[in-house]
Amino acid sequence: MEIKIEAIAIVKNKREGLSDDFWGGILTEVELLPHIPSASLNGIETFSHLEILFQFDKVSDATIVFSGHPRGNKEWPDIGIFAQRKKDRPNRLGLTIVELVERKERSLLVKNLDAINGTPVIDIKPIMKEFLPDSPIKQPGWATELMVDYWKNRQ
Amino acid sequence: MEIKIEAIAIVKNKREGLSDDFWGGILTEVELLPHIPSASLNGIETFSHLEILFQFDKVSDATIVFSGHPRGNKEWPDIGIFAQRKKDRPNRLGLTIVELVERKERSLLVKNLDAINGTPVIDIKPIMKEFLPDSPIKQPGWATELMVDYWKNRQ
Repeated sequence: MEIKIEAIAIVKNKREGLSDDFWGGILTEVELLPHIPSASLNGIETFSHLEILFQFDKVSDATIVFSGHPRGNKEWPDIGIFAQRKKDRPNRLGLTIVELVERKERSLLVKNLDAINGTPVIDIKPIMKEFLPDSPIKQPGWATELMVDYWKNRQ
Repeated sequence: MEIKIEAIAIVKNKREGLSDDFWGGILTEVELLPHIPSASLNGIETFSHLEILFQFDKVSDATIVFSGHPRGNKEWPDIGIFAQRKKDRPNRLGLTIVELVERKERSLLVKNLDAINGTPVIDIKPIMKEFLPDSPIKQPGWATELMVDYWKNRQ
């Protein structure tokens, strides 16, 4: 079941290399591609948070796995890819909730997007509180350990 | 920038017709397609919530808009498509946080997935609390009004 989609915007920031941690404080501009009209962003400034869907386009087919130890760390269990947020995954799709800082005419300034410069964006959705979990979140210990430095600022 | 992706799973539930409201209490099975190994779900039961990415495959190109009044309601403002979660959108991508009820060998039983029977699923990600918003959510009045019946049970 092949599905064809198209980038609708592109990530512009100062983050060039692939790396796992220290995404804190990064400001990113998400800029619409020429075929998408500016009106598609109208009213978006009335929301505080957005979901950005993107593709990890630098990931090659060869590194995609169906399961493995997160970050190759043998102290963490061998986990299925759909129980991880690792980038080397079928379809190479990424998804992050960001804070909207400013809407410009054809771009959005956002905080805390963990995607590098040049990444294709395939959708943007507003966060409504009714779509957030309404019961307590349970997650395994390895996930909490893995996230310790993720949103920290680089020293 | 064309991007080719493939369905990894399919939605199985009793919801056949397209409709806007009353998604409450619906149980859905998300079943892996044959080319995806069962191991890709290993350990997923250690998470309480998942993000399901899917495609609204019944939406035709003709109904896709870049902006409009949500649900055609003129009492609500004319809003860009990226400030709405409407299905008739570029790339027709859907995305919902669900509660995981049970992991079976090759499928997941989930609660509160707003996708109809037969919908192709393109990714599954675990919710980690570090990826949820850590500042208060702001949303416009029309969004709150629109959501009033969304998660209610059908009478």
